Amino acid sequence: MTVGTDPPGSLADDLAGLVGREHVRVDDGALTAYARDATPLYTARPHAVVLPGSTDEVAAVLRYATDRGVPVVPRGAGSNLCAATVPLSGGIVMALTRLNRVLEVSPAELLARVQTGVTTAALSDAAARQGLLYAPDPGSRTVSTVGGNVATCAGGLRGLKYGVTRNHVLGLEAVLPTGEVVRTGGRLWKDVAGYDLTRLLTGSEGTLAVITEVTVGLLPAPEETGTGVAYFDSLADASRAVAAVIASGVLPATLEFLDRKCVVAVEEFAGLGLRRDAGALLLFGDDGPTGAVAGTLARIGEVCADAGSPEVTLAEDVARSEALLAARRCSLPALSRLAPLTILEDATVPRHRLAEMVDRIDDIAARHDLMIATFGHAGDGNLHPTCVLDPDDGAAVERSHKAFAEIFAAAIELDGTITGEHGVGAAKLPYLADRIGNDQVALLRRIKRAFDPAGILNPGKLGS
Amino acid sequence: MTVGTDPPGSLADDLAGLVGREHVRVDDGALTAYARDATPLYTARPHAVVLPGSTDEVAAVLRYATDRGVPVVPRGAGSNLCAATVPLSGGIVMALTRLNRVLEVSPAELLARVQTGVTTAALSDAAARQGLLYAPDPGSRTVSTVGGNVATCAGGLRGLKYGVTRNHVLGLEAVLPTGEVVRTGGRLWKDVAGYDLTRLLTGSEGTLAVITEVTVGLLPAPEETGTGVAYFDSLADASRAVAAVIASGVLPATLEFLDRKCVVAVEEFAGLGLRRDAGALLLFGDDGPTGAVAGTLARIGEVCADAGSPEVTLAEDVARSEALLAARRCSLPALSRLAPLTILEDATVPRHRLAEMVDRIDDIAARHDLMIATFGHAGDGNLHPTCVLDPDDGAAVERSHKAFAEIFAAAIELDGTITGEHGVGAAKLPYLADRIGNDQVALLRRIKRAFDPAGILNPGKLGS
Repeated sequence: MTVGTDPPGSLADDLAGLVGREHVRVDDGALTAYARDATPLYTARPHAVVLPGSTDEVAAVLRYATDRGVPVVPRGAGSNLCAATVPLSGGIVMALTRLNRVLEVSPAELLARVQTGVTTAALSDAAARQGLLYAPDPGSRTVSTVGGNVATCAGGLRGLKYGVTRNHVLGLEAVLPTGEVVRTGGRLWKDVAGYDLTRLLTGSEGTLAVITEVTVGLLPAPEETGTGVAYFDSLADASRAVAAVIASGVLPATLEFLDRKCVVAVEEFAGLGLRRDAGALLLFGDDGPTGAVAGTLARIGEVCADAGSPEVTLAEDVARSEALLAARRCSLPALSRLAPLTILEDATVPRHRLAEMVDRIDDIAARHDLMIATFGHAGDGNLHPTCVLDPDDGAAVERSHKAFAEIFAAAIELDGTITGEHGVGAAKLPYLADRIGNDQVALLRRIKRAFDPAGILNPGKLGS
Repeated sequence: MTVGTDPPGSLADDLAGLVGREHVRVDDGALTAYARDATPLYTARPHAVVLPGSTDEVAAVLRYATDRGVPVVPRGAGSNLCAATVPLSGGIVMALTRLNRVLEVSPAELLARVQTGVTTAALSDAAARQGLLYAPDPGSRTVSTVGGNVATCAGGLRGLKYGVTRNHVLGLEAVLPTGEVVRTGGRLWKDVAGYDLTRLLTGSEGTLAVITEVTVGLLPAPEETGTGVAYFDSLADASRAVAAVIASGVLPATLEFLDRKCVVAVEEFAGLGLRRDAGALLLFGDDGPTGAVAGTLARIGEVCADAGSPEVTLAEDVARSEALLAARRCSLPALSRLAPLTILEDATVPRHRLAEMVDRIDDIAARHDLMIATFGHAGDGNLHPTCVLDPDDGAAVERSHKAFAEIFAAAIELDGTITGEHGVGAAKLPYLADRIGNDQVALLRRIKRAFDPAGILNPGKLGS
């Protein structure tokens, strides 16, 4: 990496020649803004920010970067929570937000094709206008980009029934670091011509290629949706209820949980009328043809009652349903209010070990004298332990790092993983070998080199 | 590859030292049997057949083969239709059929873990005994192995609603050609720790690693299933009905078609009471909670009638349902009776171009004076044009090669692909670059080298 020794002006001039001067930023404001993403505590300034307006411009910048050995960090909205888009080695941040056109929505083919910088919400809305559903709904959906969702294999609240981003991507246009444009997959739900590069790029976190266009599958929009909530005296009871729901043969769209601390924080934040004395809260929801949803929700409610829930409420209308979902969606802002620094993490265990894992988290938090509340996707076993603390309290920040290291180790010990949906980025890279082993880490590096021989793409992340 | 110059005895002795003499075959019967798979016209004898009994033995054989540069072709049941397991360069065929234990079925985690050589049917049955569904149901399910299904990303009759094998694989144990054992994914539905090697190996056709163990996700078994059939005067009418079904907001589990030639052949073969004067037949089926299926099927039936079907029949009971499904499942044996050689192919187009594609196929068949009948998965746009001919008629065989080359070109021209579910193998490799481009073929080769530096694993196939 030779950028440090070059005058910044030369890099900016070179990039201006490729994408136009108005789309290259080297001012202090831009370099500061693009020094971070949504991950706290990670900052590194790039040497330049470039905003290409076409696939050809992406390719031109990448060829230039490979020739010169300049790092390039591709980035959508920067809403990831694992420092996946922090330019650790400087170089170029390539912001893909200008590539923001919905290219087509095809009801006949049940698919949409969008440029990489379209927001998840814009894609969902474009699909909904044609009576179709784009199933993945990550928490950041109003700001996150589809390309970013693909790069991180984003999850969401409907994962139990519908799966994650990987299950809905049909094809990609992507530019290799050496400048070649490849089209993987296509418009088809079944296509096995070649290695599954579509899925390999999905979740590759901008380390293998720059995704410029995404074709996703859509589903007929469900006719009805509904939501219910069940309180429990303890998370262990709630966890047993989750197991009983699954065992009853129901796989609802949504099965989320909030622990005791989250319920209190959400109620104080949003005043939704939640029971502040609850040991845990399960939120469940489903969608389907007219008339089918009410029966499913009633059945889940009965199972929860049988599993010991002292109170089950089914939303009587869409407005109340939205309010209940808001309880889950506002967990993070509610917790964020408690202290200036919020570290939202992401570990997953087999769903029947959820309560065991939350007990471990509570023990670890107590031992390190930290406030860690946990919510997440109970049906998937995907937990979001969230630590709130004062960033100026260096000792507490240090303790939080130790606590999360122990949390990831506990997740692995319980047959789980260090990240269910947020990604590895820079934040989880130190734990990756614990999860997948050194042989597989070495293999990831060889795959990375097959795509990126000069090692310019998002260095210090996956494959490094 | 040095095998050809070695005395075969030496290879056999070496392998016997690794897996035991009783699990190494160099007799003429074995070498002839393992010279082919279910693909007609492809034959190449290996130098030895080895049947390892454990992951460690797989690793030992692979290390040996990498050290000596001996090709290894891993193989399950050999039921693939693209010559994916024909040992084109000789060497070792590694038959994985001894690794045939169902290791666990977990209703709590909705998963099963099996050794690679378990048959698809055995996995399905083990799941069903616990009230669970393994969704993929490839046509070869009674003989095909789960490892083979993963290696080819097998599809089946329920793909429209449930997806293909890739959508149900949670984790793999696999042995790299250099002998390292890696575990990808795991027991979780959400896991983004590292590149998605689980999906990269799924569909890699034994060219990157040898899969030794598979963890798959299961679903609660549906309470009911049902089937119906609609006749049409033409495949164009049937294709319009498929579009109308999708547009009506229904995504049934099964939506299959038989063209005119298939209907006649099946009726002559099985005497199911099908209308021999039909221009096309659509078979539709769904599953779901008690009471929900009948309504869905009635709705599909109405849509088909509105789209011009002169006759729609809903199966009144399970037995009739099975009989209708048999009509689709016996398309291949029915066609096989018509001539000694049956070439079953696999191309996919966007579903609204199904009729257009079948017209093209019919034109191509007529031009080359060949009998090609077509059936397949209408909902997925996945067609199986099937040519029946006399293998001793060399000119006809030659014309069939030309015809299929034109069929693949037509599929690509219609935004489709050269293989939806059967794989590339040796049979489709000549057409791969037409579908994915030279840059992507070169990338596949680099990925192959990242796994298999000595190039010993299934040479002459994907990545070669």
